[in-house]
Amino acid sequence: MSATSTAHAKAVELGRHILRMTTAAGSGHPSSALAIIHVVIDLMYRTMRYDPADPWNPGSDRLVLSIGHAVPAAYAAYADLEGVVGKSPKEARPLTIDDLASLRELHSTLDGHPNPAEGFPFFDAATGSLGQGLSAAAGLAVAARLDKSNKRIFVIAGDGESREGQFWEAADFIVDHRLYNVCLIVSCNGQGQAGPVSHQQSAETVAEKLEAFGWKVATIDGHDPDAIHGATAESAGRGHPTAIIARTVKGWGVDLMLHSNYHGKPVPAAELGAACAQLEAYGKKLGAKAEESWTPRKPGKIAAESARVPIALPGLDSALRDAGLAAALDKKELATRVAWGVAMVALGKADNRIVSLDGDVSNSTYANLFAKEHSDRFFECKIAEQNMITAASGLAAAGKIPFASSFGKFIERGLDQVDMAAITRANIKIVGSHTGVSLAADGPSQMAVTDVAFFRSMCHVDAGGRPACRVFQPSDAVSAYRLTELMANLDGLCYLRTHRPNAPFIYELDETFTTAGFKQIRRGADITLVSAGYMLHTVLSAAGRLADRGISCNVFDAYALPLETDAILDAVQSSDSTILVVEDNFAGGLHAEIAEAAAARGDIRVVGMTVARMPKSARTAEEVFEYCGVGLDQIVGRCRELVGR
Amino acid sequence: MSATSTAHAKAVELGRHILRMTTAAGSGHPSSALAIIHVVIDLMYRTMRYDPADPWNPGSDRLVLSIGHAVPAAYAAYADLEGVVGKSPKEARPLTIDDLASLRELHSTLDGHPNPAEGFPFFDAATGSLGQGLSAAAGLAVAARLDKSNKRIFVIAGDGESREGQFWEAADFIVDHRLYNVCLIVSCNGQGQAGPVSHQQSAETVAEKLEAFGWKVATIDGHDPDAIHGATAESAGRGHPTAIIARTVKGWGVDLMLHSNYHGKPVPAAELGAACAQLEAYGKKLGAKAEESWTPRKPGKIAAESARVPIALPGLDSALRDAGLAAALDKKELATRVAWGVAMVALGKADNRIVSLDGDVSNSTYANLFAKEHSDRFFECKIAEQNMITAASGLAAAGKIPFASSFGKFIERGLDQVDMAAITRANIKIVGSHTGVSLAADGPSQMAVTDVAFFRSMCHVDAGGRPACRVFQPSDAVSAYRLTELMANLDGLCYLRTHRPNAPFIYELDETFTTAGFKQIRRGADITLVSAGYMLHTVLSAAGRLADRGISCNVFDAYALPLETDAILDAVQSSDSTILVVEDNFAGGLHAEIAEAAAARGDIRVVGMTVARMPKSARTAEEVFEYCGVGLDQIVGRCRELVGR
Repeated sequence: MSATSTAHAKAVELGRHILRMTTAAGSGHPSSALAIIHVVIDLMYRTMRYDPADPWNPGSDRLVLSIGHAVPAAYAAYADLEGVVGKSPKEARPLTIDDLASLRELHSTLDGHPNPAEGFPFFDAATGSLGQGLSAAAGLAVAARLDKSNKRIFVIAGDGESREGQFWEAADFIVDHRLYNVCLIVSCNGQGQAGPVSHQQSAETVAEKLEAFGWKVATIDGHDPDAIHGATAESAGRGHPTAIIARTVKGWGVDLMLHSNYHGKPVPAAELGAACAQLEAYGKKLGAKAEESWTPRKPGKIAAESARVPIALPGLDSALRDAGLAAALDKKELATRVAWGVAMVALGKADNRIVSLDGDVSNSTYANLFAKEHSDRFFECKIAEQNMITAASGLAAAGKIPFASSFGKFIERGLDQVDMAAITRANIKIVGSHTGVSLAADGPSQMAVTDVAFFRSMCHVDAGGRPACRVFQPSDAVSAYRLTELMANLDGLCYLRTHRPNAPFIYELDETFTTAGFKQIRRGADITLVSAGYMLHTVLSAAGRLADRGISCNVFDAYALPLETDAILDAVQSSDSTILVVEDNFAGGLHAEIAEAAAARGDIRVVGMTVARMPKSARTAEEVFEYCGVGLDQIVGRCRELVGR
Repeated sequence: MSATSTAHAKAVELGRHILRMTTAAGSGHPSSALAIIHVVIDLMYRTMRYDPADPWNPGSDRLVLSIGHAVPAAYAAYADLEGVVGKSPKEARPLTIDDLASLRELHSTLDGHPNPAEGFPFFDAATGSLGQGLSAAAGLAVAARLDKSNKRIFVIAGDGESREGQFWEAADFIVDHRLYNVCLIVSCNGQGQAGPVSHQQSAETVAEKLEAFGWKVATIDGHDPDAIHGATAESAGRGHPTAIIARTVKGWGVDLMLHSNYHGKPVPAAELGAACAQLEAYGKKLGAKAEESWTPRKPGKIAAESARVPIALPGLDSALRDAGLAAALDKKELATRVAWGVAMVALGKADNRIVSLDGDVSNSTYANLFAKEHSDRFFECKIAEQNMITAASGLAAAGKIPFASSFGKFIERGLDQVDMAAITRANIKIVGSHTGVSLAADGPSQMAVTDVAFFRSMCHVDAGGRPACRVFQPSDAVSAYRLTELMANLDGLCYLRTHRPNAPFIYELDETFTTAGFKQIRRGADITLVSAGYMLHTVLSAAGRLADRGISCNVFDAYALPLETDAILDAVQSSDSTILVVEDNFAGGLHAEIAEAAAARGDIRVVGMTVARMPKSARTAEEVFEYCGVGLDQIVGRCRELVGR
């Protein structure tokens, strides 16, 4: 019983920290933190193999706190263990008990929810948008397998958050990929935010659901140290994924939190003393006594993958020949999505960190080329994009360079997950295929048209000295191939937009591309056209038609965001011409990028043509372009209007 | 057996149409359509109570084709039944067999996936982004209950798409709300796009999962007309939700589709004759013979809710008094989220069509005010935003005016669902609370900062003569109250952005607001400031500080998008001042809106300040504003720089 009495003593000690730090912060979730306190103690003091002095050790067991708002429990334990915080090993320093009072302060590493990027490397994923942790754990578990590590990944989730569909996507993925080093603990306290959880999220129902999903489930008292330790130890090394349903009490040990649903608010300062005393008294009743001294078990050893920077690809010609696609070289025509697939095969050869995830559309995105060549590093996620994106984030946390691909429209399914990955500063690459209205026949339910606006919104946000996101829009096979290479070499979130139709080569095979983001591909004096992606071909056709009429066009391929727009504007300013931006997506993309920069100068005219009508099916891309106001004739007409002849 | 032989004969007849129309289109999914052909025949000819000549009849049973790519099966049946198509009863005309060849043509109502807005009113929801249909059905079922209708809602889903988490969110919701008029049929053909479905999506596992979720499940042969009819009939009026697992064959009856996985491609024209012959021969083997003549059963009667336009609210003062919030009138201060809640109570009184859905945060969004007053029209969706948004779309299809609320950050969870609702032209209102970085202490995992860019991207897209989306950003209680009223009166998708902190009243209680989207609230000559929402208060403080220094500011509240920007620009142009736009969100919002319009003129300078750094926790909104580059001092400094003193 000495372990039990020690655990209770620790629960009281950390519980006091939880109460104090949330009261000091004036906000936070002490009641949810107290519900998981015994689970956190078991994991962080007794079960996990890790070194609090070196949270970057790649051999460590990991904890994903899916129920992010309960984080004060982990902060308290980590401070007690003198765990190290800091944005890098160079800035490392141990967290102190005094630091806990800085919870939620601007200059604190202790954010309101787990936020590793702010200097808390014990965590791998920003959490707090619920239902995502199990997916992050899945990604970490996949990486552990690739690294031949037996490290374990623990996840603490909440009953209420198991309502999120993504939770079940992750449950499927973990079974499919036999990720038996994942141990899920669901804190079932029966309370949500606005009221009790549904019977659908009761401990019994969650257990039944998990069993139907193929998991082994143990249901325990989440405040019984012995039961917890038995369950977490027993689940190691089994031939199935394990879930522990832990019946917990929201506000454990603090009477004033036990009445009705005490959610998301600290104890008022005037009642703090009473709350601490209640906790103390409750602990005494349970025989709390610090009889044992616990030090976390040491992590296993692991060979870290050595980074090769830069990752360099061979010429596109040899890559195409290797892929059996040499015919494209003769025809000088290939869809950007195919060229991306070819680049992935080459990337996979160049660097073992490259991995690929796809959502049952690998024969459309062309991730199947990578899957064939590097089957051990390809992960079929099936039709479940939310899990795919967060799992990619987990893989990135373990040092892999994941590319997650689907139709751009279905990537939209996981934008909150993309956002959480951006907060994590996860080094993930998202690839949306069949983007824009050029998809035509399949119709709007398959067309990504809001994607550029969404991803661009993050392009002007600083995330540690680099943009929170970069967007790449290749127009041909050469640029698709080289931009994929560029993405692999850049740290952080990138979005690549590929297209369904075949497209002629615009560039010579030896062309190079940079984060400046543009190339001038035609020179003229009367008007400047800026476009990207598949639409660039239509714009070039327009320029050709206009030339026949004696109107000469500048044409820029603006293949990346953020764009070094000023260089384009400088070039244009001297010619005093109007800029027309043409896109096959809704507003907020390239046109916004250029208009914002031009308007800041106030002396260059910029006009945009974006998809201005809800698209529908049509047999050809050209028909849909015209239907949506961005057809060839419309571009030519608009240019003539602007030029005045 | 005459029903069986008739069903097989019908399957062969419609199967031929499916083969022909997809071959004519040059794309499409004949194999998936053939898999559901017997299910479609049972529903559309024998089980559903509806009138093909009047698809708008509100008493009709409904069919949601979640597996949207299989739609040729429904098109073929509907043409055979001479079902009526058209964008409104005025344009109604029966679909003919000849029309089927227009599948996926620009001027056809037969889009590649179900798309009611293009003139196919038999459907209620655009589908094709998978896993959403059950949620749409849930919304339709909720509406049927409110209308005291016993109509049934049928959903055909696929095995592969049950991998989508949203499917399970819907399964929970349907059990929670006892929506026993929903009948789910899962076509289990074992094939996805890129390969076979996982064992996790096998017929057996899907059945076990549904049972664990509280559903009654029957597993049948999906090509046995008798078994199907027994199952669909038996599920009527039971005290539980019913799922029918239908084992189906992808490419049923067509030999050349039965080898490996034949997905998403039509039969080549040269093989069309052979394919039709195979189908015919297979039907003969099964005894296909048109012995019975089927006419769909008539729909029930239903009292349609009479629309009251405009929906008019009382004064904010009386609404606040009714809500017990009269103190706000004295303090002249209230959070926009609370004012929204107050407006909802009043809207609910003014019009029975108003309904509210919330995701376990009603005590934060203030949807709880509506829930208390109109409990029969409040639907707790728990922590499952994807289902919430699609269910709202289903409610809208049945004539309700649903408001779906959550933290703006968690609305991001359902952006693909928002997009599908926009394609549907669903009249839904999305309310994101706690938006922007003013949320402060909770940190970035709870802050909506990409939302304005995303929703704005649809604001410049025509959807039948109106914008596909409108965004509203109230800055105080008066505008929050009146903009909520305005939203209820506008047709189509609207997004309202509310904030956590209390905010002083800017407007008099009798102020009015329109879709023009702006008000000039301060006049000056030196510089023009444009902002919205909570940030407007900071901008007004900046204007006050600048006035102390002798710099006089124009200040505009740009509370709606799309914005009638030219009116602002006209006002500014005369004063020749620079415009500074300030926002508490990432790029792509109001700044882009104004910069695009200004750059099109080319003679007005517009500068933006948006959240330029990934936010983190801090104790106050002001600290996070400054951290992210949009603090009061920074605004003042930027104005001084621009004015040059």
